[in-house]
Amino acid sequence: MTQNFTIDTQLQHRTIREFAPVKVTPAQLETLLQVARHTSTSMFMQQFTILQITDNQKKAAIRKISTQDYVGGNGELLIFVVDLYRNQQIRKQMQADDGRLHQTDVFIQGVEDTVLAVQNVVNAAESMQLGAVILGSIVNDAQKMIELLGLPQMTFPLLGLQVGQPAQKPQLKPRLPLPFTLFENTYQTAFDIHALAPYDEVVQTYYDLRDTNRRIDSFTKQVASAKMDQRDTKRNQILEILHKQQLCLA
Amino acid sequence: MTQNFTIDTQLQHRTIREFAPVKVTPAQLETLLQVARHTSTSMFMQQFTILQITDNQKKAAIRKISTQDYVGGNGELLIFVVDLYRNQQIRKQMQADDGRLHQTDVFIQGVEDTVLAVQNVVNAAESMQLGAVILGSIVNDAQKMIELLGLPQMTFPLLGLQVGQPAQKPQLKPRLPLPFTLFENTYQTAFDIHALAPYDEVVQTYYDLRDTNRRIDSFTKQVASAKMDQRDTKRNQILEILHKQQLCLA
Repeated sequence: MTQNFTIDTQLQHRTIREFAPVKVTPAQLETLLQVARHTSTSMFMQQFTILQITDNQKKAAIRKISTQDYVGGNGELLIFVVDLYRNQQIRKQMQADDGRLHQTDVFIQGVEDTVLAVQNVVNAAESMQLGAVILGSIVNDAQKMIELLGLPQMTFPLLGLQVGQPAQKPQLKPRLPLPFTLFENTYQTAFDIHALAPYDEVVQTYYDLRDTNRRIDSFTKQVASAKMDQRDTKRNQILEILHKQQLCLA
Repeated sequence: MTQNFTIDTQLQHRTIREFAPVKVTPAQLETLLQVARHTSTSMFMQQFTILQITDNQKKAAIRKISTQDYVGGNGELLIFVVDLYRNQQIRKQMQADDGRLHQTDVFIQGVEDTVLAVQNVVNAAESMQLGAVILGSIVNDAQKMIELLGLPQMTFPLLGLQVGQPAQKPQLKPRLPLPFTLFENTYQTAFDIHALAPYDEVVQTYYDLRDTNRRIDSFTKQVASAKMDQRDTKRNQILEILHKQQLCLA
């Protein structure tokens, strides 16, 4: 294994969900935003936008949508938005039609731009000894997020990111061993759940700081659990909302 | 601005498309894969898989799909696959139904897992003075990629990544200034293309090594150009292929 400062930090990655009452400095924030800006972008289309949330009422509303106590608390809250609106405007003002902007693959390119930037910012934050939590939970009610942030058609609020000074030291969370997630040349469809038993045991030694320090379920139990069961949730409406945003139409 | 080794590298990011005839060492490759493995994952569902391409015929086929000369040449070629198949198998073997796995939001979670890992690996590679190019072009013919890699339903080949010893020194590619991509609290829909004129000028000073060292079009011209025009391309079929893969059904 190669070792250097970047990689050592990456291999020590933990999600931080409790932040000290210390502000992210303007210099730190500027650095994070510049790193986001320098991220790879598909076909040079630059299809994402960041919303910095400073308004306390909006923070509270986002906290309610995400149903996570720590959202909008200490630290800085950024919302990463897939943004095809800007390029639609450019095309419109250059007398071009919308072209491929309503196609699913262009939306996926926008998602890629957005998520690449999120991870780049996470790496930058952790290199500064800041901690971060990526918030997929903002799409618990995507429609409300859209209204809250005044997002026009051709945009979609994909991920939140809360960054701050860590006030907790979680364990390193054990991930699937590579033999399950890496194949050579061809996907291996043969899969026997029993092979996961040793990993399942390791997962159960992990203490989740979120839930009053109790151990967590095995990986397989989590996959088969209620959180992946079909249920009545606004997350079921995402395709509908994407269409309403004029995205993924074909 | 904060400075450290990680951030300095991130701010110097260039896509590398020409690689020296030097192998990525086993230690380097192991490091990249371990970094991928330690990336954040949505709801702990770990929904991505990497295919390492070592077979020369497959490399040639992927090169043909991506229509980029350098694909499958010097360096290491990895294909990052959104993988909901593994969790479907787990649920099936635990006598659970497929639950939410066919929902669009779960597919998007898988995309997020996959893209977060790609960027993490890019950062690790660049920290080792390796170069990388992210290959969105593998979805130029997603159906052929699926057949080539033996990908089952519930998976989708999202991005390729070629990593190797850089054999070129591209210029730093100028990105949109933050005032266009960062808002506070509320999205600003007012947009006047004329405000982009200074940026457009800067973009035109960039020499693209890909096309025999000629300057590139301005950003706005690229957005309004043929590459974003509606046209007959297999990329138009991605939604159909996702459905065939039993993904994004609702």
